[in-house]
Amino acid sequence: MREAYHVELEELAGNLANMSVQVANAMEKATKALLDADLGLAEQVIGDDAKIDDLRAECEEQAYALLALQAPVATDLRTVLAVIHAAESLERMGDLALHVAKAARRRHPEHALPDPVRPYFQEMGEAVVKLALRTEEVIKSKDVEAARSLEAEDDRVDEIHRHLFSVIMAKDWEFGVPAAVDVTLLGRFYERYADHAVSVAKRMVFVATGKMPGYGSDEDV
Amino acid sequence: MREAYHVELEELAGNLANMSVQVANAMEKATKALLDADLGLAEQVIGDDAKIDDLRAECEEQAYALLALQAPVATDLRTVLAVIHAAESLERMGDLALHVAKAARRRHPEHALPDPVRPYFQEMGEAVVKLALRTEEVIKSKDVEAARSLEAEDDRVDEIHRHLFSVIMAKDWEFGVPAAVDVTLLGRFYERYADHAVSVAKRMVFVATGKMPGYGSDEDV
Repeated sequence: MREAYHVELEELAGNLANMSVQVANAMEKATKALLDADLGLAEQVIGDDAKIDDLRAECEEQAYALLALQAPVATDLRTVLAVIHAAESLERMGDLALHVAKAARRRHPEHALPDPVRPYFQEMGEAVVKLALRTEEVIKSKDVEAARSLEAEDDRVDEIHRHLFSVIMAKDWEFGVPAAVDVTLLGRFYERYADHAVSVAKRMVFVATGKMPGYGSDEDV
Repeated sequence: MREAYHVELEELAGNLANMSVQVANAMEKATKALLDADLGLAEQVIGDDAKIDDLRAECEEQAYALLALQAPVATDLRTVLAVIHAAESLERMGDLALHVAKAARRRHPEHALPDPVRPYFQEMGEAVVKLALRTEEVIKSKDVEAARSLEAEDDRVDEIHRHLFSVIMAKDWEFGVPAAVDVTLLGRFYERYADHAVSVAKRMVFVATGKMPGYGSDEDV
């Protein structure tokens, strides 16, 4: 019985790791759609979001069943609860990738981003996809150091995000209010995506160390 | 034993309902700080956010203890899990009120909002505070109809939020990019706050009916 139960727990972590890969793919494609004004790719991300939602529902149902049937305690209980939280964050990351894709679609065939800010979004895109893939590693390895290493990447995203504000608010910004609004919202989507990735990793640290990560404001606006 | 357990469950719901009231107060004050450029009130919201974070940590620890010690099943298990999710959403609502307060502080002694958009924020502020207080009712009463009634209020917030975009993107917007960026971010904070309130209510419906509320995109951008 306990044996089968640990297999189920492993399966659950595997499904969660799979979610990380899916949301990384979604954001990678959404960023490409945004940078290249690629409508087909944007539509693909939009169409695939339901799959991420299904994965989350599956993770959650599986976690509920484990709690109801096995009544885990100690580390096993922590693991199941961490998975429930992490699945919520990962689904939200999928939603944020969806928003990026929708912005690309909304402006098509125009580019949503004026040329001067494109490199920032390229870099943020690469950084957040790396973050999502690193959550996959952390879910599998439960390595505390790997989890902490996400924070440096997240800081880089915050830095670019802050810099974007100075770009759009500068006197020589020549692309008007609508482009500034797009940049504001899109920048925030990447920043929140990165925050959620860090939050997933923190939950996994919690499982490994039994110590609650800090609550409170996990973002910087 | 089971008797004491139901008392604890009641207590947990009571703490969660208390969180709803706290985040409603926070957003009410933050909105007033924003509309009146009231630095003292903004500082108060900023200082009080840690209390909301503590309440959430308390709810969560209490829920964890219940799961570990009592291994609830069926409706009781659903209730505890709904509380864990709802506490996360409520803490996030507190963070969003904090962001509004910080925006008011950042622009002080100036007003963060140009005159023409102030009435929209006043109305959104009233609507979202009502939403937060309604989640308190739903947590206490677990009334499905009351939970559903939040959606109409949320639709109104979405409508104002969408309208704000047309105001700042109109040709006669005379307040420049920085004010448009503030309006964009602030509008989003209210809209997300409302979404989280709806999500708390949905979780409570789940407890009452045993039927999973719809997953997926709970917002409209």
